[in-house]
Formats: sequence, C-alpha cells, structure tokens
Amino acid sequence: MRKPRIDLNCDMGESYGAWQMGQDAQVLRHVTSANIACGMHAGDPLTMQRTVAAAVAQGVAIGAHPSLPDLQGFGRRVMAITANEAYALTLYQIGALSAFAHAAASRLHHVKPHGALYNMAARDTTLAQAIAQAVRDADAALILVGLAGSALPAAGAALGLKVGHEAFADRRYEADTSLTPRGEKDAVIHDIDVAIAQALSIVTQANVTTRDGKILSLQADTICVHGDRADAAMFAERLRAALDQAGIGVRTLDGAGA
Amino acid sequence: MRKPRIDLNCDMGESYGAWQMGQDAQVLRHVTSANIACGMHAGDPLTMQRTVAAAVAQGVAIGAHPSLPDLQGFGRRVMAITANEAYALTLYQIGALSAFAHAAASRLHHVKPHGALYNMAARDTTLAQAIAQAVRDADAALILVGLAGSALPAAGAALGLKVGHEAFADRRYEADTSLTPRGEKDAVIHDIDVAIAQALSIVTQANVTTRDGKILSLQADTICVHGDRADAAMFAERLRAALDQAGIGVRTLDGAGA
Amino acid sequence: MRKPRIDLNCDMGESYGAWQMGQDAQVLRHVTSANIACGMHAGDPLTMQRTVAAAVAQGVAIGAHPSLPDLQGFGRRVMAITANEAYALTLYQIGALSAFAHAAASRLHHVKPHGALYNMAARDTTLAQAIAQAVRDADAALILVGLAGSALPAAGAALGLKVGHEAFADRRYEADTSLTPRGEKDAVIHDIDVAIAQALSIVTQANVTTRDGKILSLQADTICVHGDRADAAMFAERLRAALDQAGIGVRTLDGAGA
Amino acid sequence: MRKPRIDLNCDMGESYGAWQMGQDAQVLRHVTSANIACGMHAGDPLTMQRTVAAAVAQGVAIGAHPSLPDLQGFGRRVMAITANEAYALTLYQIGALSAFAHAAASRLHHVKPHGALYNMAARDTTLAQAIAQAVRDADAALILVGLAGSALPAAGAALGLKVGHEAFADRRYEADTSLTPRGEKDAVIHDIDVAIAQALSIVTQANVTTRDGKILSLQADTICVHGDRADAAMFAERLRAALDQAGIGVRTLDGAGA
Repeated sequence: MRKPRIDLNCDMGESYGAWQMGQDAQVLRHVTSANIACGMHAGDPLTMQRTVAAAVAQGVAIGAHPSLPDLQGFGRRVMAITANEAYALTLYQIGALSAFAHAAASRLHHVKPHGALYNMAARDTTLAQAIAQAVRDADAALILVGLAGSALPAAGAALGLKVGHEAFADRRYEADTSLTPRGEKDAVIHDIDVAIAQALSIVTQANVTTRDGKILSLQADTICVHGDRADAAMFAERLRAALDQAGIGVRTLDGAGA
Repeated sequence: MRKPRIDLNCDMGESYGAWQMGQDAQVLRHVTSANIACGMHAGDPLTMQRTVAAAVAQGVAIGAHPSLPDLQGFGRRVMAITANEAYALTLYQIGALSAFAHAAASRLHHVKPHGALYNMAARDTTLAQAIAQAVRDADAALILVGLAGSALPAAGAALGLKVGHEAFADRRYEADTSLTPRGEKDAVIHDIDVAIAQALSIVTQANVTTRDGKILSLQADTICVHGDRADAAMFAERLRAALDQAGIGVRTLDGAGA
Repeated sequence: MRKPRIDLNCDMGESYGAWQMGQDAQVLRHVTSANIACGMHAGDPLTMQRTVAAAVAQGVAIGAHPSLPDLQGFGRRVMAITANEAYALTLYQIGALSAFAHAAASRLHHVKPHGALYNMAARDTTLAQAIAQAVRDADAALILVGLAGSALPAAGAALGLKVGHEAFADRRYEADTSLTPRGEKDAVIHDIDVAIAQALSIVTQANVTTRDGKILSLQADTICVHGDRADAAMFAERLRAALDQAGIGVRTLDGAGA
Repeated sequence: MRKPRIDLNCDMGESYGAWQMGQDAQVLRHVTSANIACGMHAGDPLTMQRTVAAAVAQGVAIGAHPSLPDLQGFGRRVMAITANEAYALTLYQIGALSAFAHAAASRLHHVKPHGALYNMAARDTTLAQAIAQAVRDADAALILVGLAGSALPAAGAALGLKVGHEAFADRRYEADTSLTPRGEKDAVIHDIDVAIAQALSIVTQANVTTRDGKILSLQADTICVHGDRADAAMFAERLRAALDQAGIGVRTLDGAGA
C-alpha cells in the first residue's frame, strides 16, 4: 500500500507596508507550500521579496496567491470581473511574483487564487477557465490549486495542468462540498484538536463530516493552514506533528519532501 | 565607414481602465522599441496585455517601463524611496510585464524607468545601482535604457548589462547634459522640424546644441518619441521618415531591424 | 396647468491625474446639476477642486457622485460590499466633495451614486437604506438622486429626504422599468433625435416606450446627460434646446433656474 | 501664576481594512486630542467611522490627520507635490473626516498633517501656506497643529488660524529645534521615564535638552503620544499620570478638559 501523503500550504506575505499580518517565519517551519500575496490584496514588493527569501531559505515551495484588486477589502469582496480581466489579473500577479522567485534563484511551483477570487473560481466555470489559461500561459509546469472537487482544478486539468485539490482542516463543509460561509456560526473550527481530526480524516479516509453530520467523500492533495488565525503558528506545528505521527508523508504537490 | 544606426523608442500602454492615453497603434508603425507601463503609473493588466499584443504584432521590441507607485501623479512626482524599495518595485514590474510577453510567445528586450524614477536614477548612483541590480536579477539579457551619459546606464554597464543611452529629439538640453526641466519655457521642442534636426544631429554628429547655444557631445543609442504629444503619431512618422531618408538604420538596441 | 419642468444632470469631474475624460466645460453650459466624482472611481482632489469651481462659475448645482472604490474598473464592477461599507464609503465621499464646495463658497445640493453602486442601490433595499442614511447623516437637506421608481429614492423618501427620480434620454428601458444592460445591443440610444424624443416623452407624457414596444409609465425629476458620450457636449446642447423650445422649465431639483 | 496646561494628542485610526495598527481604545482614555487618519496613508472609511465614534464616546477632541497619498509607504515617503496638490489633498481629507464627525453629532477641532507631509510643512513655507489655506477654507475655526516653532504654525497664524505648537516626549531634538531624523540612533527615546522627564521639562520649563546636551527653549501647546509604539497605551497612561501629578492641566487646544 502506498503511504498516504499530503501537502501543507499556508497563505503568506500578507503584510503591506507598515502593516504586519501573520506569523510567517514560524509557520514556514511546518508547511511545505507557501502561497504568497502578489500586491493586489496584500503584499507590497518588499514584502514579496522578503517572503520569497524566507520560503526559499526554509525549502518551502513558492506559489503565487493572486487576488482581486482590493486592498481595502483584503480581496475578500466578490467583484464582477470579466473572464478577460481575471486572465490578465492572474497573469500579472504570477509574473510579478515569478520575478522575485527567479531573483532568489528559485522558481514558482504553484498558483492558488485568494479569497473571493478563489471562491468565485470554484463555482464559475468561465472564470476558472480564464484563470487556468493564465496559469498555463505563464508556465505550463505550474500546479493550479483550488477547492477540492470544484470548477478550478477541473478547468486546470482540462488544460493539461497538474492540479492540487485543496481541503481545509479548520473550516466546516456543507453537504454539497462547499465551505460553510464565513458569516455563519461554526464556519471556522476553532478547536485545534477537532481541526486536526478533520485533517486526518481527509488524508487517511478521504472523507469529511459535514456540518449536518453527513459523511462526505473528499479527495485532497493539500491542506490549508490559515495564516490569519491568531494561533496560526501553533496550529501549523500541531497539525504537522499529528500528520508526521500518523505516518503521513508531508510533501509538496510535486512530491518533494520538506 | 559603419552606417549610422539608431533605435526609436516610445512609452506606451499608458491608458488605465476607462481612461485612454496615447496613439499607440499608429506610433507602433514607426518605432522599434515600446516601453510598456506596468501598472504603477499607468497600465492596468488588460491594457498591458493589449499593448504587448500590439507590439508583438508589429514586430516592435517590448520593454518594461517601471515607475514609482503613483497613479494620481502619473509617476511624475519625485518620491523619496529607498534603494531596497527601488529594487523591489522594479523587479515586480519587470516580472508582471514579462508574463504578458511570455504569454504572447515573446520576451522582454529592455527596461526603461518612467518619469520621476527615470530622472532620479539618472542622478542618484545608489538608486541607479538598485534598479540595475533588479534588471540583472530579473534577466541578465535585458538591456537597461537610461538618460545618455547618466548614472543609470553607468550602473547597468558596471553590472555587466547591455545598456542603451537615450537622447531626446524634442527636449532641450542644458550645458551639463541634463534635460531642461519641464517647468521651464523651451523645455519641449514643439516644432517637429526643429526636433527632427536635433535627432539627426545626435545620430549623425553625436552632438546637440544646448539651450544656451553650446554644442555638446552626446552619444545615443536610442531616441525617444514622446507618446503624450498631441501629434505623437505624426511626429513618429516624420522622424522615422527623416532617419530613413538620411540613410540611418533604424534598429532595436540589440540590432534587429523593424 | 403647471408648466412641466425637469432637471438636467451630468456626471462630471471624471478625469484622474494625467487622464482626461469628458467635455465638462461645454456640457456645464447646458445642464442644471453636476454629479462630481469623489476620488473612488475618478476625480483626484485637484480635479474635484477644478470641477466644483467650474460648476459654481456656471451656476450649476453641485452633487456628490460617490462610487465603489475601483479606479481600475471606473466603479462599474459590482462589488459585494456590506451595508456598513456602503454607508461609510458614501459618507466619506460626500464629505470630501463638501469641503471643495464649501471652499468655493457654495454647498452640496444632491448626491447620486455612480455606476455599479447606482445599479446595486436601485435593486437592493438594504444597500439603498445605508446610502440614504449616509446622505441624511451628512446633511439632511441633500437631495438623493436614483433610478426613477427604484429602491434608492424610496429609501431616501422613507428617511425624510427630498429625492430625485432619474430617467435616461439615451438608454433603453426594459418592461420592468430597469435599464437594458450595457452588454446588450440597443442598450444605448446613439441617435440624438431618438434620445431627445424619449426625453420629451418622459417629461411631457410621463411615459417611455420600452425595448419591446410597450408604453411604460415613468415619473422623472431629472434627466441624465451621459458625459462619456463622444458627442456629450452636442447632445447636452441639443437636448437643452429641445426642452427649452417645448416650453419645459429646466430647473434644478430644488427649483432654481439655470 | 497661571496653572500650566498642555494638550496630549495621539495619531489614531491607522488600521486599514484587515490590517490592525495601534491601541486606540486604551490610548483614548489618556489623551485629549485624536488625530485620525483620512484614507491616504491609513484609515479606510469604516475605520474612520469607528475611530470617530470611539473618540466621541471618550470625549476626546477629533482632528484630521491628512497625508500624502501613499498607502504602501504609510505616508512617510517625501513626495514632490505642488502647493496646489497639497491644498487639494488637505481639503479632501479634512472634508472626508468632517462628514464622520458630523454624523457622530460632533465636529472637527484640529488638523495635524501626517508623516512626510508634516515634516515637509515644517520646513517649506509655500507648502505650509497651502495647507493652512486649505484648513481655513474648510473651517476657519479649526486649529492647525504643527511642529513647534516651524513654518506650519507660522503659516496658520499668518492666516488668522488658531494654531497648536507640538512637541515630542519621546523624540530627540537637534540644536536647531528639528527632530533627530528617525534613521539616526537615539532618534526615539525608548525609556518611558526619560520621555516623561522631557515632557515635564517642556511643559513646566518651556525647554528641552538637545541630543548634544544643549538646553533649548521650546514653547509647546500639545505633546504627541506616538500610537505606533509597542507600549503606546502604557506610555500614554504613565505620561498622563505624571502630568496630572505635577498639577498640570491636561486640556484640549481650545481649553476643554478631558
């Protein structure tokens, strides 16, 4: 039997100028993939440079984390952009981050849209295709990460991209595999033990228990560690330890160890 | 005797969203190099994509035109940025434009800073070095374009980059090789015939007559066509025709014809 | 019988920094109300100052034209903002423009949301209430202008504000009183004569013929002149002349002549 | 003998969207004046609304804290703006904040420029006059606060504005009354006891000891509590207690207690 394996990813580089966010340095010690903000919802150029350097130093795979252009809303507000706009915005941000990766003698490994763009791309096939096309046009070797089972990885696979299906340790699932919206109570699983149990269930059983108690089949390649949790570093450390202890290989999406 | 040759470059892609600027389509027919705005002073992602496509279609060499982050001031207001900020801003913008060039099956050919950043980099050696380093870290094959004889091409050459010394057909020169500041009268040469005569003098004689009538030695590799002149397209057409007629090879900075 | 009267309004001050838009100086000669951009979709502070000065000089009533925060999309992209965000954005922009009006020894007369915010507020009662509350909290004497018959003037009236129902000379109407979306053909009436006829029908008959030929009752207090038409100045001049000739009093929403 | 008195002011509302900064709630309990960010360097509209509400609830005088337009640089990077731009930027931001004050049944009490604009206005008479003119044109009753003894309060006084000369408890002074630049060591006084001693010397003796040990005469109306100190709340509390204990009346610039 193949030893189960999983990637651990975390959104990073979400500071902006004088404003600090996240516990990137500590979280980097425990994850295998870093999704780095590209300037549209967070991440000024200096922050991008520093975050790439920190990820490279830690041997963590670097991914672009493109967003809708909305600093004020941190990229979390749905905007009615066209497919052409989604294509161009994604390409722009991938390119910007690529330059920092290249300057650090590294390269981009994956792309995972941020916030509202992530959610929109999970549901909207046209938008998902535009984003997938941008990823392929930037670099056909990039891995496109999206909500497990959603339109985005499907669009990537249809274009011949390697894709990563993402699941969440600390978010509740609805019966239709969507995430319980953040506005609802119980949307976020605050108890770390419960979140770890959900992660282990996803990785080892390929299923998750929904908010209303149904068991749902869920195939995932990567688990998200939310960088904006107040306890993000401890969460990452304990999740990683639990996966290690369960004999699960924590590996990047292209199979490298970390 | 080697036939004299020169590159003709023009700033382009300086529309933003609903706002249009320039006569890019017409100017592209007459120049060999396009300096394309990268989103900081102008050039939203869709505009960048369209401008790259138009330049590629016309066989014009594509360059990044990075700027200070100042949409409101169109990148023309001096800002006291650090060398680290200059490095990161330049790398960011080169990367963003590179992705559009790559998606269009092309590649970046040169980098020319915009507006206040261009002027600051002409005078400030530390800033010039930071920008040159960003260009080299992005792609050591890129040509760095700056004010002829100034700190920027010097910094590029010191890092082993190929550089382009830029001169102006329609700007007056001071005795110290700097441009007459835009605030002064006579800063801009409005008469196209006078501007063409200045360009021919620069290309064939390697000299220019300063505002106060001195003849100044000036070695240039590229002449700038200002895209924001109301008569930019006609200016480009007539300048190109005059150069062609004088038997001057109008070629990109790496020697390709156009 | 009371002589029919109408206000003519136009969106203005939609330049931004180096980018020019509109034919404000000419249009101002023919309209009674100017809706002035407040910095979020267009209108840097200097443009706001100049536009207010021009409107005051021409005796045209000054209104705030608040928008979603989206320079890149010119405020035309729907964004999922909360009611609290709509309230604060509206109040911010009204305040900013008020200061220029006050400095010009004038005062704000009305508020008309821009673009996507206008359309969202026409349909979404909660958003409309938030905007109306912001207007009332800024100055209870302000007139709130919105799509005739829609949620926005209703919300304003419910809060005790004077409201202006707006109709369009050059936009097609659907059977439900909504505007034919810009994406559809026939959304915009390009023929000035047809548009003038529609305006006269609205003002004198209180009805409009919908895209599918139905006659729809439509009570309007103000007619919009689109400032972004290529022929905006001529359109305004001819519409004003037609209204004058028909004996219609062209007056601001609070009854002042112009 | 008149009992000595002083105002205590603090920069506030410098969060932006998802990014938090400062300890506003705690600091508000100890100061008499709040300088509230207006959206250009920090302070989105919702943050402005909340900060105004908190200041009003605490009975603290509300001031506008206008800045250069530079979110990425937190308004700390000098920009070469014209006097006209300074005027319009200042008026814009005062107006925006005024609307929130008005909606909270309060009013603006003072204006203090932020960061680089503050420093530029201390030295540059033309810029100082433009800012003072904007303050007067917004509301002639506003108090203009600037570096004690500098060009800004002088320009305000020349226009007939009430002005506030500001001194710093925790910044070192040079022999020419300027602040030791932040880049230098010793620029900031980290030891709270030393800072309190400096504040008491300024308030009770009207002098301060410069970095090189000279005693300098310094008349101040208000002392700044830096909201971005890690220990800002404790600093404010201890400074206030020391002033109270020394029998100094801590009052707003127009004399109201707090």
